[in-house]
Amino acid sequence: MVKVTVWNENVHEQTHEEVRSVYPEGIHNAIAKGIAGSGFDVRTATLEQPEHGLTEAVLNDTDVLIWWGHMAHDKVDDAIVERVQKRVWEGMGLIVLHSGHFSKIFKKLMGTSCDLKWREANEKERIWVVDPAHPIAEGLGQYFELKHEEMYGEHFDIPAPDELVFISWFEGGEVFRSGVTYHRGQGKIFYFRPGHETHPTYYDENVLKVISNGVRWAAQPHGTKQYYGNHKPLEEIRSK
Amino acid sequence: MVKVTVWNENVHEQTHEEVRSVYPEGIHNAIAKGIAGSGFDVRTATLEQPEHGLTEAVLNDTDVLIWWGHMAHDKVDDAIVERVQKRVWEGMGLIVLHSGHFSKIFKKLMGTSCDLKWREANEKERIWVVDPAHPIAEGLGQYFELKHEEMYGEHFDIPAPDELVFISWFEGGEVFRSGVTYHRGQGKIFYFRPGHETHPTYYDENVLKVISNGVRWAAQPHGTKQYYGNHKPLEEIRSK
Amino acid sequence: MVKVTVWNENVHEQTHEEVRSVYPEGIHNAIAKGIAGSGFDVRTATLEQPEHGLTEAVLNDTDVLIWWGHMAHDKVDDAIVERVQKRVWEGMGLIVLHSGHFSKIFKKLMGTSCDLKWREANEKERIWVVDPAHPIAEGLGQYFELKHEEMYGEHFDIPAPDELVFISWFEGGEVFRSGVTYHRGQGKIFYFRPGHETHPTYYDENVLKVISNGVRWAAQPHGTKQYYGNHKPLEEIRSK
Amino acid sequence: MVKVTVWNENVHEQTHEEVRSVYPEGIHNAIAKGIAGSGFDVRTATLEQPEHGLTEAVLNDTDVLIWWGHMAHDKVDDAIVERVQKRVWEGMGLIVLHSGHFSKIFKKLMGTSCDLKWREANEKERIWVVDPAHPIAEGLGQYFELKHEEMYGEHFDIPAPDELVFISWFEGGEVFRSGVTYHRGQGKIFYFRPGHETHPTYYDENVLKVISNGVRWAAQPHGTKQYYGNHKPLEEIRSK
Repeated sequence: MVKVTVWNENVHEQTHEEVRSVYPEGIHNAIAKGIAGSGFDVRTATLEQPEHGLTEAVLNDTDVLIWWGHMAHDKVDDAIVERVQKRVWEGMGLIVLHSGHFSKIFKKLMGTSCDLKWREANEKERIWVVDPAHPIAEGLGQYFELKHEEMYGEHFDIPAPDELVFISWFEGGEVFRSGVTYHRGQGKIFYFRPGHETHPTYYDENVLKVISNGVRWAAQPHGTKQYYGNHKPLEEIRSK
Repeated sequence: MVKVTVWNENVHEQTHEEVRSVYPEGIHNAIAKGIAGSGFDVRTATLEQPEHGLTEAVLNDTDVLIWWGHMAHDKVDDAIVERVQKRVWEGMGLIVLHSGHFSKIFKKLMGTSCDLKWREANEKERIWVVDPAHPIAEGLGQYFELKHEEMYGEHFDIPAPDELVFISWFEGGEVFRSGVTYHRGQGKIFYFRPGHETHPTYYDENVLKVISNGVRWAAQPHGTKQYYGNHKPLEEIRSK
Repeated sequence: MVKVTVWNENVHEQTHEEVRSVYPEGIHNAIAKGIAGSGFDVRTATLEQPEHGLTEAVLNDTDVLIWWGHMAHDKVDDAIVERVQKRVWEGMGLIVLHSGHFSKIFKKLMGTSCDLKWREANEKERIWVVDPAHPIAEGLGQYFELKHEEMYGEHFDIPAPDELVFISWFEGGEVFRSGVTYHRGQGKIFYFRPGHETHPTYYDENVLKVISNGVRWAAQPHGTKQYYGNHKPLEEIRSK
Repeated sequence: MVKVTVWNENVHEQTHEEVRSVYPEGIHNAIAKGIAGSGFDVRTATLEQPEHGLTEAVLNDTDVLIWWGHMAHDKVDDAIVERVQKRVWEGMGLIVLHSGHFSKIFKKLMGTSCDLKWREANEKERIWVVDPAHPIAEGLGQYFELKHEEMYGEHFDIPAPDELVFISWFEGGEVFRSGVTYHRGQGKIFYFRPGHETHPTYYDENVLKVISNGVRWAAQPHGTKQYYGNHKPLEEIRSK
């Protein structure tokens, strides 16, 4: 059974009534419940816990980590960020959601600014499948819509993705590469755009399906551990 | 000086008054004039010419071929299509425009159906730069607009592009990968979406800039001829 | 259970004693038996069968098709090739082995010549994992070796792969992109290099592991059917 | 005229007689002289200079920065590394050579460990062109050889490159992705493998040709500056 840890900074929910009314138990619990039916073993972790809930023990027992953060990116300890990066390199899957584009961990894994355009105007978002062969698109139609979302617009300053799965259309005139995948070391990364804290996005059936698909994709088996450094002498090879 | 051949089926212009009024000298001449200022040596060729104007001599003297076709795709001789494909493999650049997505040559080079959604509704198209490091985006702003264009929508059934330069937004709710590049053998291919025959798109300054940039990109020097088949015996290598 | 059809031209086995002695029941049966332990539902098909054993019924009942061909590429009926291509576009996985690089179906799906260098000199091949995050590399070490194989060398005239999983090293001085993946429509394609007909390659544990991994990767669920052509009118969208 | 700055830590040359005998004026001057004939405006900079010779003024006046470092990676000031990264994001080209794979700047731009296998055994390296359409392969044959080089072997822990131009074969049994390109923001990056400090690699005609080709590729024009952050209100767009 795939082991998932849903991490949320869980700050808006404490400080903004508007957010609390949408996610009374926090975004992390909404996501955890929303994907529980997919047969994963799901736990949650938040910023305020010791080591942000991401101890060595928890990460070593996690197949896929889901990350939601926004206003408290800077409060995440650099040592924990490096620990997460190391685990991704070792094979843990990572799903970065929405404003997580600006998290320390995502920027560190991308090597770019990860900046973008944004606008809070309750616009309609239409998310188009552009790679229908991809397992993350399983069970979706040709597109799905979110009636009200924050706009994120290009240029999204990320490396050219290994795979581009979704492109979003926004009412106000923007487009966005909304579903992108990367390999880093032995780990797989999936960035998925939707999920502004004031909208009930993480209760949406299609959004939850995409996150579940992403977990399965990121949890796939992968190659064995690689070894680096000085390699056996040529002489030894020659004498074989 | 880069040698460009602009190929156009030149059929709409003969049969549709609406198209003739926009392109009285044909789409090929509009493009040829439009990019002439970029310092290229430009000629044109059309379907009705012997060998569609694409003789061995012409192709061997062409650095970059620009292709516009629509209602007469099936009238293009298979032998000429193979000749063009061979020249692309040998290093000739190819720029495929708009409805050329369904040309024999593009489908042959892609290996997919190249199908898409479309709608003729004079919609606004906004073309976003998503790879600002790319030479084809030179001199453009963050996006440019065409007030009235035919809509092309995803899913666009092409292979994952080597590089994705532009994404279009359409008023009616669709997105499209509007500028995509590929290598095939020693040749470079650039597909660029805009250019419905009833709109004055090929007089638009930004569109012409993109086509000129595309020509320069596709005309870049490349590696030398590759040799295939039986390779020198191992013994010969061992005895070195 | 994943349904696999192993296709083999099965000609060398009839005409070359050297090949028959290695594969007395044909390459197709060696592969079918070799991957049977992976829990697939495996059948075989060969060139001499009616419709080459690839009827509509068989293809519609196949999740992943494995293809081995060499001296009889030209004997494969064009209509069957188009049928296979259509099924790949619809979501059937395709694994092309070794000399299948020159099969009609592979060339048609790639859009390139698919040519390469080759040498029959019983050389050692060492196959390196270069994408340890990839599910096709599951369970392998950092590399594995085949003591005696035909050499295939670069330049391998294929499109830039979506993913590059393996690179081969050959004793005589060549390298080769040995494991490459592509999406075409809703289908996934994996080309895997080893398997010259005079070597017992398809009894090798690592080779069989890679083919099994490839089947699982190509059989993954994918997006739903896409629709193309004229899209609902803008007015309808506006009035929503 | 393209403005190139060749940066070298220039430490081995001071401390190892063996290196000084090969590069009496330093690796940076060997490279600078070697590519001067290509019509670039070349200057050099080294670790021991104030701000490592990479002041704001120098970087703002540099189109392409070439980087060689090895034993002193840790001595490079983090503030300078961030300055270089910012300039790459703004459009400066970056060519990272050989042991520069472990430089702070390369690791920061890649988001991976950038680790690899290595062996100092004076092996023969054969560098194969695998993308003959690429401008960096201009003027090369199908491969070129270096008689004696340090071995670098896979797995090379980098993100999947945007383009893979070269693969190296080594006598002792390894392969390596030797020429890889990336876009980061508006900047282009080219990593090129050869150049161990005890070998006269930077006097080799083919190596210098590749570096010159790389400079021209990285110095190409690119898109204009992108703007990020809050985007104009939807109302304003609607009222247009």
